[in-house]
Amino acid sequence: MSVRKPSAKAVAAPKKGTKRAPAKADAKGADRVKADRVRDFAEFRKRMNERILEHDNQVVRRFFALDTQTYKDGALNLKTKELLGLVASLVLRCDDCISYHIAQCRDAGVNRDEFFEAFSVGLVVGGSIVIPHLRRAVDFLDQQEAMPA
Amino acid sequence: MSVRKPSAKAVAAPKKGTKRAPAKADAKGADRVKADRVRDFAEFRKRMNERILEHDNQVVRRFFALDTQTYKDGALNLKTKELLGLVASLVLRCDDCISYHIAQCRDAGVNRDEFFEAFSVGLVVGGSIVIPHLRRAVDFLDQQEAMPA
Amino acid sequence: MSVRKPSAKAVAAPKKGTKRAPAKADAKGADRVKADRVRDFAEFRKRMNERILEHDNQVVRRFFALDTQTYKDGALNLKTKELLGLVASLVLRCDDCISYHIAQCRDAGVNRDEFFEAFSVGLVVGGSIVIPHLRRAVDFLDQQEAMPA
Amino acid sequence: MSVRKPSAKAVAAPKKGTKRAPAKADAKGADRVKADRVRDFAEFRKRMNERILEHDNQVVRRFFALDTQTYKDGALNLKTKELLGLVASLVLRCDDCISYHIAQCRDAGVNRDEFFEAFSVGLVVGGSIVIPHLRRAVDFLDQQEAMPA
Amino acid sequence: MSVRKPSAKAVAAPKKGTKRAPAKADAKGADRVKADRVRDFAEFRKRMNERILEHDNQVVRRFFALDTQTYKDGALNLKTKELLGLVASLVLRCDDCISYHIAQCRDAGVNRDEFFEAFSVGLVVGGSIVIPHLRRAVDFLDQQEAMPA
Amino acid sequence: MSVRKPSAKAVAAPKKGTKRAPAKADAKGADRVKADRVRDFAEFRKRMNERILEHDNQVVRRFFALDTQTYKDGALNLKTKELLGLVASLVLRCDDCISYHIAQCRDAGVNRDEFFEAFSVGLVVGGSIVIPHLRRAVDFLDQQEAMPA
Repeated sequence: MSVRKPSAKAVAAPKKGTKRAPAKADAKGADRVKADRVRDFAEFRKRMNERILEHDNQVVRRFFALDTQTYKDGALNLKTKELLGLVASLVLRCDDCISYHIAQCRDAGVNRDEFFEAFSVGLVVGGSIVIPHLRRAVDFLDQQEAMPA
Repeated sequence: MSVRKPSAKAVAAPKKGTKRAPAKADAKGADRVKADRVRDFAEFRKRMNERILEHDNQVVRRFFALDTQTYKDGALNLKTKELLGLVASLVLRCDDCISYHIAQCRDAGVNRDEFFEAFSVGLVVGGSIVIPHLRRAVDFLDQQEAMPA
Repeated sequence: MSVRKPSAKAVAAPKKGTKRAPAKADAKGADRVKADRVRDFAEFRKRMNERILEHDNQVVRRFFALDTQTYKDGALNLKTKELLGLVASLVLRCDDCISYHIAQCRDAGVNRDEFFEAFSVGLVVGGSIVIPHLRRAVDFLDQQEAMPA
Repeated sequence: MSVRKPSAKAVAAPKKGTKRAPAKADAKGADRVKADRVRDFAEFRKRMNERILEHDNQVVRRFFALDTQTYKDGALNLKTKELLGLVASLVLRCDDCISYHIAQCRDAGVNRDEFFEAFSVGLVVGGSIVIPHLRRAVDFLDQQEAMPA
Repeated sequence: MSVRKPSAKAVAAPKKGTKRAPAKADAKGADRVKADRVRDFAEFRKRMNERILEHDNQVVRRFFALDTQTYKDGALNLKTKELLGLVASLVLRCDDCISYHIAQCRDAGVNRDEFFEAFSVGLVVGGSIVIPHLRRAVDFLDQQEAMPA
Repeated sequence: MSVRKPSAKAVAAPKKGTKRAPAKADAKGADRVKADRVRDFAEFRKRMNERILEHDNQVVRRFFALDTQTYKDGALNLKTKELLGLVASLVLRCDDCISYHIAQCRDAGVNRDEFFEAFSVGLVVGGSIVIPHLRRAVDFLDQQEAMPA
């Protein structure tokens, strides 16, 4: 059965031939801690997805498969759909979901201006209660952008 | 001060020179009732927006202005932003907001396949609790499409 | 494709050989209005479910099929699962979902004491914001119980 | 057992010796319809509260009693607490709760400027998704103010 | 006054005469970290519950007592009620509440198949936004099952 | 452009001439860890607010400015408005927002009895799902009160 494998994309081990942008010396430690946290989270997600799908529950398995299918190119393209997933996650205030869709959006070519316009929709629709999630979203985006393209 | 004037678009009095698609005789009454309800709602919205903005509260007024500004063409185009507003409204389960964004999306050229893909994102992210709102969304969309283009 | 057909159960046309419990004369009119409203809603639900499934969107269709599958007898029996659906609907405050699951629970043999204990969980977990929905839930339950068994 | 009796306050039959502010002739009908709707709702609320409390479920009864106790004068006065209840209801988007607390706030002496500042907090915290509820809130407030003091 | 004492059950110090299932050597460290985290959380919960109830606020105290009372055996048995609490917590996406009810459900004899069916209801009703909470729920369940029965 | 600078108030570096209340020896380490965590969070908030406002997105910037403006003294005073923000944050269950408003409320002179009454409104309106957030709220309040006034 095909299920969403978010970790592969979300973490994105440096591609061959790319170089990490040089970081200021005093920020390197913090960067490493963050990179570790991102990796830990991705591993946790991957491992728990597997644990969940190991159990013989057809409804849960079908739901996961359906979730993957939802974002495929169709009448709306992948990029638009991932943006829809991102804003839905923002207004429902789910940090993990926001991070996931930010990673997916980046893969689909969403640039920083586009991200901020999507954020602005989420912020205005969802209100100031969204702000703490927006902070973590921008922090995650910064981390992703600091990684080799 | 510029504020969102949703009614003008949401209701859309038949444009000159267009003709209403012929309805089956026995459904005409129900159609008229619905059209009335759509009009009543649009009038209520317009009237209450005015009542709200009449009151000298700068935060409320600025929020309304900001809400209008949010959906303007930018790095993301109007159509994409209205789709974002639609899906955010679906997962937050606000019927009035859903209707409003459906009307805006239609003006922006969203077709029925695209609507259903946006609905599918809202449904999968938000769950079966979204279904009653989806029914009313499709009913509203049907009404809008039954109106002269 | 199999999809949930809620109307058949939710409305429950009087079964053969049953009799409506006599209502006090002055309440008969109100009862009839309510019965009509219940019937109208069930028809709307049925019709819109059909409209939604008519459209060729596989994600939406699969979601509807999955929703039906969710409440089937399994490790937990149907009755328990419908109670889970009811309390989930209460705390998420969706009137249509609450009515639907009340009808399903009654078919599964949930009695009034059990309903109120399920309501009490929903009320304590979800807070006083649930109260208006609880009023409508009890009103719907009263209507269902007033109908021929 | 003491339970909240919202209807007495929320509907407020005209007090002796007061006079209804003259309405423009063409709006009288609409006003009457609205007044009827407010009365119908209050009766529904009162009746269903009684139905709910009739049932011998101690958790539900205690919750209703606790709900009443919550808004009593204490370290914070009644007026402040009702404003807290109003804003909580706004951001959780419960129209019946909003109406109830508006009526309570008016009894506690909240004036229109104060209402709009409370609304502005609810709007900014909760976002544009609150707007349809704000429209109905201001409409309800208008109706209450149109009634004899 | 009697208040819920979740920690006693949730953490469950190993009962006499039981043995910890042998863990693979390389996972022992991680297991210990997790066990510590579970214990820390339980201690935090216990300590803060006491801090909250120390303060002389009758509404808060009564609410805590009511919360405890809600899940007692009645027309519905404890097991069913804890499952209701679990699914309500899932769709409202509260990790601490989910963990608490998982521990309570285990004490009430809920097995893994039953857990997954309850999860499936929460997932379908609440949507993919529930998935990150489901991951943590299954992780918590795994930890509980790894502990001596 | 003026934006909310929450960190200055929320963290409140010890004012000159004040002394930290002596802590029991064995709790000192834990206190220091907590103080560090509060400081880290405040720094994160400050830094991310700056990152967010650096980006040239007028809607986001205006929203942040509007958020600051919302809580200014007006028809309702600052203290009341911050309490409104606190209860809104409680029922929407946003820990960062709750901490922020607790710090603001303390600056505005809210005492412990008043805090608990505000908490009681949030708890009764929002239900037991609020309890884990209440625990963290009281813990944060304890930490703030342990700091030099």
